Order: sequence, then structure tokens, then C-alpha cells
Amino acid sequence: MFFASDNWAGAHPAIAARLSGAAGGFSAAYGDGDLDKAVCDRFGEIFEHEVAVFFVATGTAANALSLASYGKPGGISFCHTQAHVMEDECGAVEYLSGGGRLHGIGGALGRIDPGELERALDRFVPEFVHAGRPTAVSITQSTEIGTVYSLDEIAAISALAKRHSLPLHLDGARFANALVALETTPAEMTWKRGVDIVSFGGTKNGCWCAEAIVVFDPGRARELAFLRKRAGQLFSKSRFVAAQFDAYFRDDLWLENARHSNSMAASLAAAIEAAPGLRLGWQPQANEVFAVITDDRAEKLQAAGAAFYDWPLPAGSTETLGENEKLYRFVTSFATTAEDIDRFASLVG
Amino acid sequence: MFFASDNWAGAHPAIAARLSGAAGGFSAAYGDGDLDKAVCDRFGEIFEHEVAVFFVATGTAANALSLASYGKPGGISFCHTQAHVMEDECGAVEYLSGGGRLHGIGGALGRIDPGELERALDRFVPEFVHAGRPTAVSITQSTEIGTVYSLDEIAAISALAKRHSLPLHLDGARFANALVALETTPAEMTWKRGVDIVSFGGTKNGCWCAEAIVVFDPGRARELAFLRKRAGQLFSKSRFVAAQFDAYFRDDLWLENARHSNSMAASLAAAIEAAPGLRLGWQPQANEVFAVITDDRAEKLQAAGAAFYDWPLPAGSTETLGENEKLYRFVTSFATTAEDIDRFASLVG
Amino acid sequence: MFFASDNWAGAHPAIAARLSGAAGGFSAAYGDGDLDKAVCDRFGEIFEHEVAVFFVATGTAANALSLASYGKPGGISFCHTQAHVMEDECGAVEYLSGGGRLHGIGGALGRIDPGELERALDRFVPEFVHAGRPTAVSITQSTEIGTVYSLDEIAAISALAKRHSLPLHLDGARFANALVALETTPAEMTWKRGVDIVSFGGTKNGCWCAEAIVVFDPGRARELAFLRKRAGQLFSKSRFVAAQFDAYFRDDLWLENARHSNSMAASLAAAIEAAPGLRLGWQPQANEVFAVITDDRAEKLQAAGAAFYDWPLPAGSTETLGENEKLYRFVTSFATTAEDIDRFASLVG
Amino acid sequence: MFFASDNWAGAHPAIAARLSGAAGGFSAAYGDGDLDKAVCDRFGEIFEHEVAVFFVATGTAANALSLASYGKPGGISFCHTQAHVMEDECGAVEYLSGGGRLHGIGGALGRIDPGELERALDRFVPEFVHAGRPTAVSITQSTEIGTVYSLDEIAAISALAKRHSLPLHLDGARFANALVALETTPAEMTWKRGVDIVSFGGTKNGCWCAEAIVVFDPGRARELAFLRKRAGQLFSKSRFVAAQFDAYFRDDLWLENARHSNSMAASLAAAIEAAPGLRLGWQPQANEVFAVITDDRAEKLQAAGAAFYDWPLPAGSTETLGENEKLYRFVTSFATTAEDIDRFASLVG
Repeated sequence: MFFASDNWAGAHPAIAARLSGAAGGFSAAYGDGDLDKAVCDRFGEIFEHEVAVFFVATGTAANALSLASYGKPGGISFCHTQAHVMEDECGAVEYLSGGGRLHGIGGALGRIDPGELERALDRFVPEFVHAGRPTAVSITQSTEIGTVYSLDEIAAISALAKRHSLPLHLDGARFANALVALETTPAEMTWKRGVDIVSFGGTKNGCWCAEAIVVFDPGRARELAFLRKRAGQLFSKSRFVAAQFDAYFRDDLWLENARHSNSMAASLAAAIEAAPGLRLGWQPQANEVFAVITDDRAEKLQAAGAAFYDWPLPAGSTETLGENEKLYRFVTSFATTAEDIDRFASLVG
Repeated sequence: MFFASDNWAGAHPAIAARLSGAAGGFSAAYGDGDLDKAVCDRFGEIFEHEVAVFFVATGTAANALSLASYGKPGGISFCHTQAHVMEDECGAVEYLSGGGRLHGIGGALGRIDPGELERALDRFVPEFVHAGRPTAVSITQSTEIGTVYSLDEIAAISALAKRHSLPLHLDGARFANALVALETTPAEMTWKRGVDIVSFGGTKNGCWCAEAIVVFDPGRARELAFLRKRAGQLFSKSRFVAAQFDAYFRDDLWLENARHSNSMAASLAAAIEAAPGLRLGWQPQANEVFAVITDDRAEKLQAAGAAFYDWPLPAGSTETLGENEKLYRFVTSFATTAEDIDRFASLVG
Repeated sequence: MFFASDNWAGAHPAIAARLSGAAGGFSAAYGDGDLDKAVCDRFGEIFEHEVAVFFVATGTAANALSLASYGKPGGISFCHTQAHVMEDECGAVEYLSGGGRLHGIGGALGRIDPGELERALDRFVPEFVHAGRPTAVSITQSTEIGTVYSLDEIAAISALAKRHSLPLHLDGARFANALVALETTPAEMTWKRGVDIVSFGGTKNGCWCAEAIVVFDPGRARELAFLRKRAGQLFSKSRFVAAQFDAYFRDDLWLENARHSNSMAASLAAAIEAAPGLRLGWQPQANEVFAVITDDRAEKLQAAGAAFYDWPLPAGSTETLGENEKLYRFVTSFATTAEDIDRFASLVG
Repeated sequence: MFFASDNWAGAHPAIAARLSGAAGGFSAAYGDGDLDKAVCDRFGEIFEHEVAVFFVATGTAANALSLASYGKPGGISFCHTQAHVMEDECGAVEYLSGGGRLHGIGGALGRIDPGELERALDRFVPEFVHAGRPTAVSITQSTEIGTVYSLDEIAAISALAKRHSLPLHLDGARFANALVALETTPAEMTWKRGVDIVSFGGTKNGCWCAEAIVVFDPGRARELAFLRKRAGQLFSKSRFVAAQFDAYFRDDLWLENARHSNSMAASLAAAIEAAPGLRLGWQPQANEVFAVITDDRAEKLQAAGAAFYDWPLPAGSTETLGENEKLYRFVTSFATTAEDIDRFASLVG
């Protein structure tokens, strides 16, 4: 019952095996090997678009370098107030962009409110240097709280961004979970809806360490290549990432993992809804479930071996917490089993 | 005959196996797992000193964050003019230290000349803000050109640094190769000679991706923890690095790999010395061999399957290149075989 | 009727004359001249405390370098959501601190709400690197909207900051206006209430260009000296700033200017309150007056020669703007005359 | 006999008077006033080219923001090893460019050696991210050691820069001194020889504080405007700089000041050449004289009231210093008098 985070899991057996299989032999370093190139081509097929792909070490690096690559003096990137770039990356965007700013936009259920974004963007007057200037919009899909932007919602934010000549970044640390939730394609969820650059995460969905920046404008590749190297994010034995993605995409393992993970979350949510005294914070759409639980119930669950953390109530939530209640987050992964869920259900039932 | 770089090799079988073995089960993320902690303890044993250990993605990151952690406004780090931080890291030190400067110091055979370093340091007057101020000295062991500082040479540079209240950083991308070349211990080669912080590399010596910052003053751990996270260098599934180091240290695999690699380099050097028309640039001490070869000979070797690059003649070298000659670098690794060397020897013999 | 900003005025005659008087002769550069030193001593007398004083070119530089001097990796400075550092400095804090973040705290009438600040600070857990960490609190006195923190209010925020081991910065671009509004002393308004570092502005109150960072802990002087030089903020002919401050402090000119300016604002506010169809946004306490005016009235005033700008309604304001109404800002200065106010009064009367 | 630096002088009477004259009345702030605009137009006339002009506080800021405006990830600016940006600006270029690097190029008498520059530039291979990449070349005119590039020498360096698609920056802290030394025009010394951006200094030649970035490509104005503001370098009462430049350019005061200053330097050099036991380091071309003097002679001169500093012997100098000799620098300015020189001459004669 390890629901603390999807990064508490290890690596999927198929990915571990593929990595072992790639250990022998020699290959050009720094992304110039055959496997690197084949995997980058595979990204192009999956996205149905010419892409430039940059492996990096972490989702934080992918996000920060993506936004930094669009940075300008006085630049401001707009994201949800609870976005990972805002809450959980220790100021990496500001640091790696040489002093760019993040501006938080509210919105229910972890999704940027387009009206609020529009008002924020409309306040900026070109050439008015005092206020700085917008340089990017960033959304998270699936969001930090396990919800998903619909394709229309992405298109609406993208339209706003385009009206202000801004690129749209998508933090896809849980890209696959959103994709299968929407039953759509990578192309539909990204460039066909105006997304310009993606932090494509494989780590939380069964890889050891497989994160990539995917950019649809190959003209940006040159700057990103220097940015990545300068940030100490260019792996020498790059094929160790390529091999992971190779297995990740083979036979749609990534989609299968995400479907399993989302399905486990749905089962967990059902168990919580059915449990007397527990209630869902909101309906989960991907692989994160948030529930309101009394402190003593939570302690008993943890004592029984369930690992999970409390979580701040999102600003704007209509939920009211009782005096001895907290909101808790449960995350499922490819490694979560039906037995885990059953055991949890029996504990709360 | 892949002599292009030691990072063209993959992962040693024992390391690949250990990584596979760690793939199952759940573990706390971000370095808080049991294996992470055990491996950090192992570093303490190996160095015979209390240490704080920070896994990072690349040697570039290890170097830049090490020097950044000692950075100050107007700060200048001193390194050899041909150091990796200077020549091959795309300005990562300057970037990640928020604008620190590197100042190159000459010296024969890739080693900082202590006299030149002293003169450079002596030029700075405390409180004279215009010139900036020294904040660190960095040496590379083994050096970029396959030579090794003796323990006395390290102590001499360290004494100079201490006289100016400066920390001494050691770029140990090839730490093990130097260690076995000197037949000494990690403690003797570092803190017992005044080294304060080490970029400890495992990648070039048989790991996939295993680099660590090792610092002997645990009081610096707090700042480094924030620095690392902010640079996007904190792995979530940190045990994938821990597992590699676990195998790396087990049964002295790291020393065995380095001895093999150095020995292959010595054989290669012997073959070159014996070959008519080829000559060594200088005697190798670790796993890199530099040789002067005519262009047509080099082309023939490459056509026969030998991979190696040309290299700029070090400033201050007494070598004179003929019109159709170049200096070439050959790097050996754990994966180099005696057959490779024999085949090369027969080609040049 | 130039109410656009207090920086539309030129220099007070006594300050201009003092500057002319200092033009002849030779003096050590970079702040080492006799006049520089005398003026720094004068700051110590005025603040009744040992101080280190750093002249800089602009208020933006004073604020950014003040906060940068307390910066750390992952550092976050807390300020009011409408603070000048947040709204009008083009990201200078983020840039000059190498990627620090500003976190906006709400609060009525331009003053930080202590409860909201406390909740924001309490969310941070030491050593939890993901969230970054607080490094400073910054208040503006007088505020961006012409209000003033009482001494008790400063003390309350300072107490919160101290409880979290954070320094308190005071943006005193309009220091003198607040000081005379409170009828207090520089010591009472700063270090006696826990302020650690002050951006001390003279420009808006009658100087050409006289801004200083005043720090009460001389131990910080060394870092600030390097920070300032490195930011291109160390004037060579530093005495041109010293001469301005010399005249500024002589015979309490600075207090006289501020009293005049505040008094003009009060008269202007009275005229607005008395005018049919105009209303004050809130009661002014220093030298800025905010009024709600219909668009056509505003245009007529501007056509008649009154210079002033519209201003966004502060978040949290209880004011409701009619369809054809806007909030406007009027700023007075040492150069505003009673005739200006009378003429304005007759236009709106 | 204040020969310590040209920034030990104050302000020329005509400039002080013009500044006083501008103190009254109201004007738009931040460079939007009529005088600001008129002075910027005047720059265009003087340079015979469309220009964008940015006033900044110091020469260090002008240099750093000029080079930062051309910065890119991994960017390297090339300058003389003894350039002011390298030796006397506390790492401002690295800091304000977000981590750019300076690479020093040698050359006799303070001037970049074109051959060495070419070899340095030729080492970079496009797209090879490890080495970083050149982003600008910077020359100083007149140089740090009082010599002057001929127009042909500027053209030669510019041609090299253009061949590598690099902009050429000219640090003109002593622009006027070089201009009158060459008896040429601003246009001939800059854009007609391929200079793209100029740090135009007025401070050392009779102003209080008048430094400007002059850029010949107005398309760069937008970025520089944000860069300047973000660096805390946008003066609110900008007309106090404009007024200084207004007087500076009126009736060719700037050229007259520079001619006087250079002429005083020539007289001083003549006195030194004629003095038994003293010798010139090299022939001065602008307003700086370097002489080799024995320690006891130097002490006696200083005791007699002459202010001057010792200076490191330039690398590559053919001069040999005796055991009790040092190289000393003497700087003249608009405020140096013939009486000063005569008195000095009589002391050394």
C-alpha cells in the first residue's frame, strides 16, 4: 500500500530488462548513438510531428529548461498557483532562466482559470519595461491534483497564449496518465491544441530516470542543446535513457502502465467513497486520489502499512475540513496491485 | 578498438545486474531510501571520514555545483587552463554559480603550476572589489591528458589554497584511475592532502550514470541540498544511482575496473612506442594515451575500425608537430580488451 | 499640476547648489573621498546606529541588492502583492539575486497582512528542499498607495520575520514621507522595530539621484561591497551622490521637503473630497492621493494641464468602480505648489 | 598633481552649470522627457547614424549590459587579457549576462592581437556544445594602458568578428581621448569600421555621471530597455544625465576636454623622458602615461603631493624592471593644469 508517490516505485521489469540488454558494446556518447537517434525518431512517430528531443535528468530540469529556452529579460511565465514549477522545484525556473519570474494563476481543481489568465495577461503593456513581460504559459497535464484538462480547455488556454504571442508549455510529468484518461493521441493533446513544448515524463510511469523535453519547432533545438549542456543535463551515456524510452514505447507499455495506474486510482477512489467516514476531495481523473480523513483514521491506516501524505487544501476549494480532518493524497503507479487496493478497502470498509 | 572515450562503453555487467535487482519494490524517493543511505555510509567508509554525498546527473553538474557552493559575488575559481570545467562544460560553472568566473592557470602535462597559481592569487588584495576575489581552487585527478598529480603535488596546491583561505575542489571524473595509479587510498588522495570537496565519478569507470559530490564538511550539506534541487539534479528514483554505486564498490569492482583500464592504456602506449613512425605525446599515467601520428596513418587506422579523436597540443608542450602530423587521444575503459590492443598493435606494428 | 509622479520634479535648489559647489577639486573615487565618508557618518547619526551605507543608482538597485545580499539557493522574499519590487522593477530582484523568488502577500491598503504572512511562512518546513525557503521579508514605507505602516505594525511584521530567522527589509523610496507622517525618528521606524536593511531614497524627495542601501549590521558590508560593484552600481565620482545627501540632511531639508509634500497631498485630498462627483479611494497618509473619477472628468482635467495616471484598483479593495469610472493616482513632491492645488481645486470644484 | 585617475576630478564648470540649470520644472521620468529625447537625437547626429541610446550609471554597467544583450547560453566574449571588463569589473559581465564567460586574448600594448584572436575563434566548432560558443568581441578605445587602436586595427578585428558572425563592442570609457588622438570622427571610429555597440563614457572626461550604451541597430533597443531596467540602471530623473551630455557635446566641449587631457599627458611624458633616472613604459597616445620609477623616487614624489598608483607590468612587455623599480600609472584629465605638470617636471628634473 505504497501510495506516497508514483516515484516510490522502481522500474518496470520490461524497462529494467531493456536497460540491461543495452549495457554491452560501445556507442557514441552524448546522444549521438544509434539507439538515441532511433528513440528520437520514435518520439516523432508518436507525436506525428517533427520534433527535437532532449533527455534530461529530472522533471524539474525539463520544466525549467523549457521555460528558460523562451526566457527574456524581465520575462514572466504563467502557471497555476499550485503547479509543480511553483510549489515543488525550489525556484529552478527562476534560477535556470537567469532570473525569470513565475506568476501564479488560480483556477478550480488544479486547472488554470482562463478568465483569470486573460486578465493577468491583459495588464501588460508592450514596451512598459517596469512591469516585465509575459514570456510563456505553462500547464500541467495531468495536474498536481490528479485532474485533467480537456482538449478544449487546452485549446482555450493556447488561444489566449497565442493572442499574446506566447508559447504554451505542457508539464507532462504524468503525460501518459492524462493521455489515457482522455483516450486521445499525443498529437491531439499537444501541438494540435497549440502546445509548443512538452516536459515528457517517463520516470513516474515505470522508468528509472527518463525525462525528455520535446519541442515541435526544430528551430529551437540549437539553443536548447546549449542550455541543456550548460545546466549539466547532458548525459554522456545517453543510451541508458534511450533504452528506457525504447522499452517504454514498445508494445504500448507506457499506455498500458498508465491505464493500470489510473484504474487502480479509480478503484481506490471507489473504496474511499464506499467507506464510512471518508470522503473524496474531488473525483480523480488520473492516478492521484485525494480524500478527507480524520486524523485518527489516517494514523491507523499508516500504522497498518499504508504510505500516504497529507496535502494542503487547494485555494478556492469548497471543501470544509473538520477540526480533526485533513486532506490526504494517494498516488498509484504501474506497480500498484489490486491486492493493495483490496487491502486498503478492507481497512477502511 | 573504441578508443574515442571511456564514456562510449556501456555499463559493467555487475552494475547492470545490481540495477536490475533493485528495480522491484517500493522505496522512499529523493535519496531517503534505505539503499541510498547505505551507499552514502559506504562512501564514508571508503573515504574514512564523515561525508555528505549528493548524487547528480553528470560530472559537469558535480563540478559546477561544487564550485557554486563556495561561490560569492565577484568570485573566481582557479583551475588548469585545459581543465574540463574550462574547456568542456559550456560555461556551467559560470551559469550555475550565478556568474562566477574561472581563471585558467598554466602548467606542464595538465597539472597546475604552483608558482603560477601563487602569483595569480597574490595579485588579489582583500576588499579591493574591482578585481573580484578568489573563491576556490580546482584540480583534476587524473587530469584531462591522462597524467596524475602526486600526493605531494596535491598537498602543495592545497597549502597554497589554504594560505588564501580557499577550498580545494577535486574533479574526480576519473578518480579511480588516479587512485590505482598512485596505489593510495581515497583518504590519502583527498582530505588528508587538504581536498575539501570531490566530484566523484563512476560513469566513465563502468556505471551508467553515477556521479556524486562528496564533501568532507557536513556543515555544507544544507546549502548543497538546496543547490542540487534547484538545479534540477535531485533524482526522484535516487536508488537507481545508489544501486550502481553499491555494485561499483562491492568487492572493489571500481578499483579492478580502473586497474584494467590503466593497464590497457599502458599496453596501448607500449604498442605505440614500438610502432615505427608513431610517438607518444608523453608517458600516460592513467587511462588516456596521447600519440603523434601522421594524417594518413591515422586515417588508415580509423578505416580499420579504430575510433579516436585528434586533440589540441597542450599549451607549453615541447612537442613539435610535423606538417602532416596531429596529436591524437586514445582512451581505454573497463570494456577495452587485450584483443583490441593486440589488433591495434598489429595495425601499427 | 504635475501629479504624475514625484520623480517628474527636478532637484531642490539647495541640492543643486551643493552639487555645483562640489564640482571643483580632486577627490578619491569609488566612495573613498572625504565627503563620502562624512556623509556616511551622517547616516549613522541620523539613524543613531552604526551603519554601512552603499550609494546606488536607483531604488530598484537598492531593493534588489538588499534582498540579494540575503539570498540563498531556493530563496524566497515575501512582500506585498503590490510592492514596487513585485510590480515595477522588471524582475530585478530575481535577476540580481541569481534566481530568487518574490512571494506576494495580500493586505488591505498596501500593507502586508500579518496573518497571511504568518500562514505563508508556516508552510515552509526546514530542510524540505522542494518548496525552497524564505530568506527575507520586505515592506514598503510609505507604501505604493500612499499609506503608512504604524510603528506597531512594523514591529508585528518584524516579530514574525524574526520568529522565522528572517531579515526585514524596508523599501524606503519614500522614507521621509512616512517618517514625517508618523512624526517619529529614523531609529524608531527601523532598527528599533527590527528592520535590518533599508533602501533609503532621496531622489523622489528633492535629489537628482541619491539612493542608498543602509544596513545596521556592519558585518554584511563586505558582501554588499562586492555585490554593488559587480552590479555596475559603484559610482566612480561617488561624491556627486554624497553632495546631494549632504544638502539633503542639512538643516533638515529632507524632513521639510517631505512635510511640504505630504501637506500638499492633504490639501489635494481635501479638494477632491469637496468636489462633487469625485471621491477618494482611501485617506492618504503620505504624498500620494488616489481618487475615483469619471473618464470624462479625468480627460477634462488632463486637457486643462493636470498630469496624472490611472491605477489598478488594489486587490481586496471594497471600492466599486462605476462603468465610466477609474481610479487615478496623484503624487505631490517638494516642488508642488499651493497654487497647483488651488488651480486643481477650482477645476474640480 | 592628482594623477591617480581621471575620475578623481569633479565636474567641468560648464557641465555643473548646465545641470543646475536643468534642476527646475517638471519633466517626464525614465528617459521620456524632452531633454532626454533631444540628447539622444544629438547622439545620432554625432555618430551620423540612427542610434538607440541607453543612459546607465557606470561604465561597468554599460559594458556588462552591452555584452549581456548579445549573450546566449554558453556564450563567450573575447577581450584583451588586461581589459577593464576582465580586470576591474568584479565579474559584472558574467553576473549580468547570467553566466557568460570572458576569454582573454593577449596582444602588445593593450591591443588585442588579431592572430591570437583568430586562432581562439577558429577553435570553436558550431553545434559542439561542450566548448560553449563565441558571442561577442570587445575592444577598449583608448586602451587600459593609454594606447589607441588605429582605424585599420579596428577594421581588422571587426572583419574577424564578422567572419564568425560576432558583434563588436567598443568600451569607450575614454572614447573622446581616443577620438582626438586619431583626429577622426565618431562614425569613422565605430560603425564605419564595423563596431556594433559602444559604451560611451562621459564621466572620466568632465561629467559627474554620464555613461551611455549606444547601439547602431535600433532593433536591439527593445531587449536593452528591459535589460537596463531589470539591472536597476534606469534612472527616474534621467534628465540629470541628459543635461550633462547636453553640455558635454555643446561647442565641442567633450573634444576640447579630451584634447587638453591628452596634451597634458604628452607634456607629462616629455617631462618624464627628460628626467634622469625615469623612463616611459611606452609612448602614450591618450591621457595615460606609464613610467618606470625607482621606489625611493616614487615615494618622494608622493610625499611631495603627487598622487599616482603602481601598475602591473603588462604580460608580454619587453620592459625589464630593476629590483627597486616599479611601473607607475599617471592619468590626466580636463582638470589637470600646466602648473601641475610644471611642478611635477621640476620635482623629477
